[in-house]
Amino acid sequence: MLEPDKLSLNIPDTTKPRVVIVGGGFGGINLAKKLSEKYFQVVMFDKQNYHGFWPLLYQVATAGLEPDSIAEPLRKMFGSDDYKDFYFRLVKVTKVNPAAKTVETLIGELPYDFLVIATGTKINYFGNENVKKFAFPLKQIPHALNLRSQMLQAFEQANMTKDAMLRQSLMNFVIVGGGPTGVELAGALAEMRRHVLPTDYPGMDFTQMNIFLIEGMDRVLPPMSPESSERTFKYLTELGIDIRLNTLVQDYDGKTVTLKGGQQIQAHTLIWAAGVSGAVLPGLPEETVERGRILVNEFNQVLGYEDLFAIGDVAFMKTPDYPKGHPGVAQPAIQQGKLLAKNLQRIIKKEPLEPFKYFEKGSLAIIGRNRAVADLPNNIHLGGFFAWVIWLFVHIMYLIGFRNKLVVLSNWIYKFFTYENGTRLIIRPFIRKGDRVTREFIDKYGGD
Amino acid sequence: MLEPDKLSLNIPDTTKPRVVIVGGGFGGINLAKKLSEKYFQVVMFDKQNYHGFWPLLYQVATAGLEPDSIAEPLRKMFGSDDYKDFYFRLVKVTKVNPAAKTVETLIGELPYDFLVIATGTKINYFGNENVKKFAFPLKQIPHALNLRSQMLQAFEQANMTKDAMLRQSLMNFVIVGGGPTGVELAGALAEMRRHVLPTDYPGMDFTQMNIFLIEGMDRVLPPMSPESSERTFKYLTELGIDIRLNTLVQDYDGKTVTLKGGQQIQAHTLIWAAGVSGAVLPGLPEETVERGRILVNEFNQVLGYEDLFAIGDVAFMKTPDYPKGHPGVAQPAIQQGKLLAKNLQRIIKKEPLEPFKYFEKGSLAIIGRNRAVADLPNNIHLGGFFAWVIWLFVHIMYLIGFRNKLVVLSNWIYKFFTYENGTRLIIRPFIRKGDRVTREFIDKYGGD
Repeated sequence: MLEPDKLSLNIPDTTKPRVVIVGGGFGGINLAKKLSEKYFQVVMFDKQNYHGFWPLLYQVATAGLEPDSIAEPLRKMFGSDDYKDFYFRLVKVTKVNPAAKTVETLIGELPYDFLVIATGTKINYFGNENVKKFAFPLKQIPHALNLRSQMLQAFEQANMTKDAMLRQSLMNFVIVGGGPTGVELAGALAEMRRHVLPTDYPGMDFTQMNIFLIEGMDRVLPPMSPESSERTFKYLTELGIDIRLNTLVQDYDGKTVTLKGGQQIQAHTLIWAAGVSGAVLPGLPEETVERGRILVNEFNQVLGYEDLFAIGDVAFMKTPDYPKGHPGVAQPAIQQGKLLAKNLQRIIKKEPLEPFKYFEKGSLAIIGRNRAVADLPNNIHLGGFFAWVIWLFVHIMYLIGFRNKLVVLSNWIYKFFTYENGTRLIIRPFIRKGDRVTREFIDKYGGD
Repeated sequence: MLEPDKLSLNIPDTTKPRVVIVGGGFGGINLAKKLSEKYFQVVMFDKQNYHGFWPLLYQVATAGLEPDSIAEPLRKMFGSDDYKDFYFRLVKVTKVNPAAKTVETLIGELPYDFLVIATGTKINYFGNENVKKFAFPLKQIPHALNLRSQMLQAFEQANMTKDAMLRQSLMNFVIVGGGPTGVELAGALAEMRRHVLPTDYPGMDFTQMNIFLIEGMDRVLPPMSPESSERTFKYLTELGIDIRLNTLVQDYDGKTVTLKGGQQIQAHTLIWAAGVSGAVLPGLPEETVERGRILVNEFNQVLGYEDLFAIGDVAFMKTPDYPKGHPGVAQPAIQQGKLLAKNLQRIIKKEPLEPFKYFEKGSLAIIGRNRAVADLPNNIHLGGFFAWVIWLFVHIMYLIGFRNKLVVLSNWIYKFFTYENGTRLIIRPFIRKGDRVTREFIDKYGGD
């Protein structure tokens, strides 16, 4: 149905300065919301038509929440009369031309007055093509739905085999990466193993189900405090997670995980949560990119430009307090987006710009159903149920503005009191790319 | 990941009679729920792991509801202690051998004492391969999600083209089939056109969006009363639907719909809701199948067998009141399933069987946001808002037993008072089979 040569961006000409924002994540939407249409025309490009609340994506993968609970269409977000000079286009940006001040997309080029790169991150497989082919990523909604179906299908098949090796491989889940995604997914899986799966599969022995959490560094949740890492390790161990620290994955062929050093784990499901790198756009001068991120000054201006910006995860702002850049979480993106809106207005009014100062609110991670860890300002580190209450409160608060707040809340309450996960529907009509039996699988096991 | 040669059904041996049910639709689940484990071992096969409330599927397609609101995993449904001798297997049944009293699946054969075919229907394209290739079906959850993404992507692209022909084709939606699915989908689309889309796409002229409803017979909703058909025609016309009666589709190439007689409509989206036929299993004697359905007596026994049954849509029970069989809706399936549970118990107790008598509760269809038509017993035909209240009440009642009742209800109330449809997420990572640009599309427009 796609006819790219007949498509064009269709952005109206304007006398106002045009701000082009690439990416509708936390940085992009907070910037766009604060930009007054009195001063600017705003154009936003994204490959997805929604903004996702990614900290809860693992919940979609484990059937605790449905996609609509964690995502909001960008058009709906900017559909009110406050955004009359705002244009969303569902299209991929292919290149920036800072010298000509244009941005290229698949269906045409657009001149800008200010360009803001807010593209976030992409999955980093560290060049391992086999892992890329066979692993299950967890970064977008289709990934989460696919992983959910994969896990449920693995149990269905484990229930239908007398081959002990195959059953064990189907019931082994290897999560690579001990950051927040890996930890929270491992916890949710452990809760499923304890409370949900034995009821769904009465004939099966779930002591055979293994959850491995593989982390290359010497502790889980490396970005958090040592106290929180220790607590998390304890909680995960109590939940029966097999944690392997200082361990790297060398290869994976869809069935066998080979660790560096040669040890092997049979597993039909490997989830890759081990790393991301900045989704840097082509066209930027080489010297503006360092370690996969775009170097910016304290005003988020890309090194050497006054009208080209990068915010959020894709930006690399070295400051005395954060010599390695800010943490890759929502807060720096949100705060940079809001500040940049003010600074753009200052630029056109020829006022001095305000430098970015990160206001650190703290970090949180949930482990299982009712425990969490929290690193709060002033070196306060909390754990257990109290941290869980904070986690819950913070996440519900951030979902404000989403119509789904109520749905999320009622789902949570339901889940908390009933130990029940949501509806475990296998709705994927496809399997992973590397699989050679896609069509056969669909024909045999339904979906079409 | 699929290794069929290593899989087997793994059903334990039993001294009780084994009832094998093929299909977890309305007939299958109502039968299974009533079968006492005191007397029977029950095995259920289905290609999907969930039971769907299909009358609300069109709501998933138009982003009014999420899949979890209209579907319930079969394992959850039969997960309680009441069903200890119940076995669900996610596998396709390939053949029945009535002489040998076995049923064949992709991963092995199973002997039965009683076999119940409750497979429902499959889409009937009437042999038109082009339509099958390019049309969007609406019969399963992945279909609904795919159609939803298709429609939203069509608007995104219509918004990005100056080619008037292409834009019109993207904004033309052809629904083939004036039965309940076609009518309810047309109504929902018309409401979206009026209340939702103009806000989402402020630059676009939605008077250009056309909804065609094509029906081969001389009235819409042919299974309902002429009064209800007339009312429905009026309501649909008021909603701006272009209804073509006595019209057949001859061909479709993904862009141009050719009607019988030669007239053409340019449309990138054609939804096929024009017909179904029974999902008859291979292996039945030829004389037991008539017009794509399985002939059964008044006890739902397949012609010539005492231990082989068919219930619901796939069954063809000719009675004086229903010489052409019962209507293809949920009620006959539900009632036959419940009665068969009793009759199977009577068979093993050697008691006389009770013949099926259809208790007709009436038919309903909703048109748009707040009007419906209802054919009730005693020749009562209602329309308008009052029929809508009945429709709403009946559907909410039927969803009882689903955990999602509350979600559905709150979604409805929200929608009713705000004119807002749900979250319009484009989450399909694939497009229709006939499309030659699948991979290119994904790469360009995201999803992976």
